Amino acid sequence: MTTDSAFAELTRLIKRAHTLGTVGELLGWDEQVNLPLGGADQRAAQQAALAEAQHAAASEPRLGELLAKLEKPARELTDDQRAVVKNARRDYDRATKLPAEFVREKAAQGSRGYHAWARAKAADDFPSYAPVLETNLELAKREAAYLGRGDAPYDHMLDKHDPGLTAAAVEKLFDALKRELVPLVREITASPVAARARAAAAKLRGFPVEGQRAFLREVTERMGFDYARGRIDVSLHPFCSGTGSDVRMTTRFNADAPLDALFSSIHETGHGLYEQGLPAAHLGTALGIHAGMAMHESQSRLWENQVARSRGFWRCFEPRLRELFPAQTAAVMADELYLAVNAVEPTLIRVEADEVTYNLHIVLRFEVEKKLFSGELAVRDLPAAWRAASRELVGLEPANDREGVLQDVHWSDGAFGYFPSYCLGNMLAAQLWYRALALRPELDADFARGDFSWLLGWLREHIHAQGRRFDALELARRVTGEELSPRPLVRYLRERYGGLYL
Amino acid sequence: MTTDSAFAELTRLIKRAHTLGTVGELLGWDEQVNLPLGGADQRAAQQAALAEAQHAAASEPRLGELLAKLEKPARELTDDQRAVVKNARRDYDRATKLPAEFVREKAAQGSRGYHAWARAKAADDFPSYAPVLETNLELAKREAAYLGRGDAPYDHMLDKHDPGLTAAAVEKLFDALKRELVPLVREITASPVAARARAAAAKLRGFPVEGQRAFLREVTERMGFDYARGRIDVSLHPFCSGTGSDVRMTTRFNADAPLDALFSSIHETGHGLYEQGLPAAHLGTALGIHAGMAMHESQSRLWENQVARSRGFWRCFEPRLRELFPAQTAAVMADELYLAVNAVEPTLIRVEADEVTYNLHIVLRFEVEKKLFSGELAVRDLPAAWRAASRELVGLEPANDREGVLQDVHWSDGAFGYFPSYCLGNMLAAQLWYRALALRPELDADFARGDFSWLLGWLREHIHAQGRRFDALELARRVTGEELSPRPLVRYLRERYGGLYL
Repeated sequence: MTTDSAFAELTRLIKRAHTLGTVGELLGWDEQVNLPLGGADQRAAQQAALAEAQHAAASEPRLGELLAKLEKPARELTDDQRAVVKNARRDYDRATKLPAEFVREKAAQGSRGYHAWARAKAADDFPSYAPVLETNLELAKREAAYLGRGDAPYDHMLDKHDPGLTAAAVEKLFDALKRELVPLVREITASPVAARARAAAAKLRGFPVEGQRAFLREVTERMGFDYARGRIDVSLHPFCSGTGSDVRMTTRFNADAPLDALFSSIHETGHGLYEQGLPAAHLGTALGIHAGMAMHESQSRLWENQVARSRGFWRCFEPRLRELFPAQTAAVMADELYLAVNAVEPTLIRVEADEVTYNLHIVLRFEVEKKLFSGELAVRDLPAAWRAASRELVGLEPANDREGVLQDVHWSDGAFGYFPSYCLGNMLAAQLWYRALALRPELDADFARGDFSWLLGWLREHIHAQGRRFDALELARRVTGEELSPRPLVRYLRERYGGLYL
Repeated sequence: MTTDSAFAELTRLIKRAHTLGTVGELLGWDEQVNLPLGGADQRAAQQAALAEAQHAAASEPRLGELLAKLEKPARELTDDQRAVVKNARRDYDRATKLPAEFVREKAAQGSRGYHAWARAKAADDFPSYAPVLETNLELAKREAAYLGRGDAPYDHMLDKHDPGLTAAAVEKLFDALKRELVPLVREITASPVAARARAAAAKLRGFPVEGQRAFLREVTERMGFDYARGRIDVSLHPFCSGTGSDVRMTTRFNADAPLDALFSSIHETGHGLYEQGLPAAHLGTALGIHAGMAMHESQSRLWENQVARSRGFWRCFEPRLRELFPAQTAAVMADELYLAVNAVEPTLIRVEADEVTYNLHIVLRFEVEKKLFSGELAVRDLPAAWRAASRELVGLEPANDREGVLQDVHWSDGAFGYFPSYCLGNMLAAQLWYRALALRPELDADFARGDFSWLLGWLREHIHAQGRRFDALELARRVTGEELSPRPLVRYLRERYGGLYL
């Protein structure tokens, strides 16, 4: 069997397994957007049957034979082929090393966990949720052990979302970040401008949903989202799913908070542009899938923050917003809209946080997760540890667990190690931003003309088209010439918010 | 292994395969309702990967072992178990006797065929489509041969959609039907009332879509469709898909033809009520799937025609329609709306036909299909044969093939033998109707009060809850005490339309 024919067969099998995964993603999208109230059980049965089929495709013995052939040192693989084989090995090991019984147990626990969390949050009853977390923690450790990482289970959880990441590396980055951020937040919130920004944001009321929909469609199309290969709908929580030629974003509308739908849509558009930019011919192999959650988040954050909170962006879109909503914007002074877009106010709730304090919410979660895995912190002591960390980092202490340790869904189905991606994504975004700016200093003028094509073209070439050839950190190094560091993020926050508030 | 444990395992495997089928159905729904223009290729890849997984589940060797055990004469099965085993054998044979290569060839040909048909129809170019039909015919015959029906391939095609049906049985029914229907249509169209009915229908213009949507939602909810277990959306062609707790109907709106959206929705609601009425615990086995296409069509037609074209129905809903659309209905006289609902006018196009002439379109297709399979008619002679049959049966001759043999999509992916179900469904509907009326003569008064609960309850108990325990003809016999016959349909059409027109 020649290398090329083995590689072609491997590619076909990988793509088949990936395609079944995209069907599961579509079922998930449909569940959030369309599913009738009474359809949950049938949907769960569909997802279970599909997961079984997907697992069978991903652990197909022929894949193992082909990998063994292609991994022989004598084989001369191209760099691209090597990247595909490496990623396929990772997926194959995950599919074959986890016993079917364990996979079923984890899936059932994930579903139970979600409902237990939802009930506990509604009733502000952490003790009822604690046993679920204990079980999830234990399952995560068993999973790490099955995959040969029993010595460092939290590293395994991080690596799951961002190949190559370790707790030690994240800790170093986050320590440096929080030393800078905590005082910056105190400075900003002490500024008299903070109250003006909040007041400006509060003036934006009574925006009809249809008008909001039209405006965000214009904005996201101008950014480059291709609606012939994607769509946007409404769901309870905004998200983006799908890939290639079928990318589906969601948002939600509130007449009295028009910036929410707009910025969540711009955020999801960042994710969507990444997925639409992956090489179509390679969807499913390492050449045609994203480089991990941190890189994904860097794309959504770059568009949401560096781009859509810029002066140039609003020079372009403020006149249009005023044209579409003359009555609603009449009382908003020149420059007030821009202040509203960049309002900063510490909050207890992560998903409501502004872009400056957001990162501290993530640092908090990372520190708590790390201690849970090391055994330094017991599940029953979580609420107290959360309160203390919230006071230290965000400067606010939750009055109850609903606004504290119970606020996020992630841990309820065992998604430990996911939170850091959000903050690493912010760091990557800032680093990419300064590299782009060095290459094209007139970006702000581009945006003022509504022209995002240079920036998108650059991201397409250097990030999107690369797929998962490299780990996120390696890819960032290649694009920016620097190691990942919190400095560009701090510089960016100081420049944008220092200029406005200090 | 006990009978019960073998039966339980069989049930689990059948349900898994069926569940994967429902995922494919959902992908199909999504393709018609949501898919971005550019997403067709990815969707085709998803359907192909899913079909492969579904086929693997349906031909799982363990299923064959369990069937062999359960089919042993010594096994004492309940009647229900016997029905499940019989249907499972049918599905298993279909999954295992067709070579994978043949299944792939047929799927690829179906996709090519669809596009060739669409192009040929747009260009009115039958000769370009003829080779596709030749291939489809040949594939259908090969399929019949693989399944041991090489001697009677058209019987096989009929049996595929309606287990137990044969061409000889259909021919006898259709011959009797057309002898009655052809003269009835001539009488009706010669009546002066025909022009009044058409003029009344033409008055219904300018109905805003939102109002139409609200009205059809009220109507279909009143009929008993449970929107907590289903939904209705918009697509190019109306259809109904899904089952149990997730039934999805579609319709389409035209401001100047409000009866179209209403009646197509009522038709799909008939299908939907059937699917919502199948026993939830048995979805996927013979105890929880529908009894074939003719029975399905009987449910949609019964609600669309016997119910929704009745005096009682409009006594209930005409006032509401006038209330919702006062300006649009102002010029419509008392009784004109009822005439509009029951307008009869021969047309060349099946999907635009009224309920009287509709059946003749089906007879035409059946006669042509039968001759194609027997070799009496060559594909190249189809257009001429169609024109002659159209003249004889419908009284109109198409000026081109677009309005003749090219009008329907069915044959383009090899769905021969499907058309008769439509007309058999009409016969069954009338037969069920008179049985229901014999049991409850006050049905029209029920409808006038907007009360459809007795009728739905009766259908639930005697049809829906039966699943596929019996073939459609056997089920009809059990419910009505009579053999399937065209007489009740002719009686119904004479009563309704004779009363109005003659």
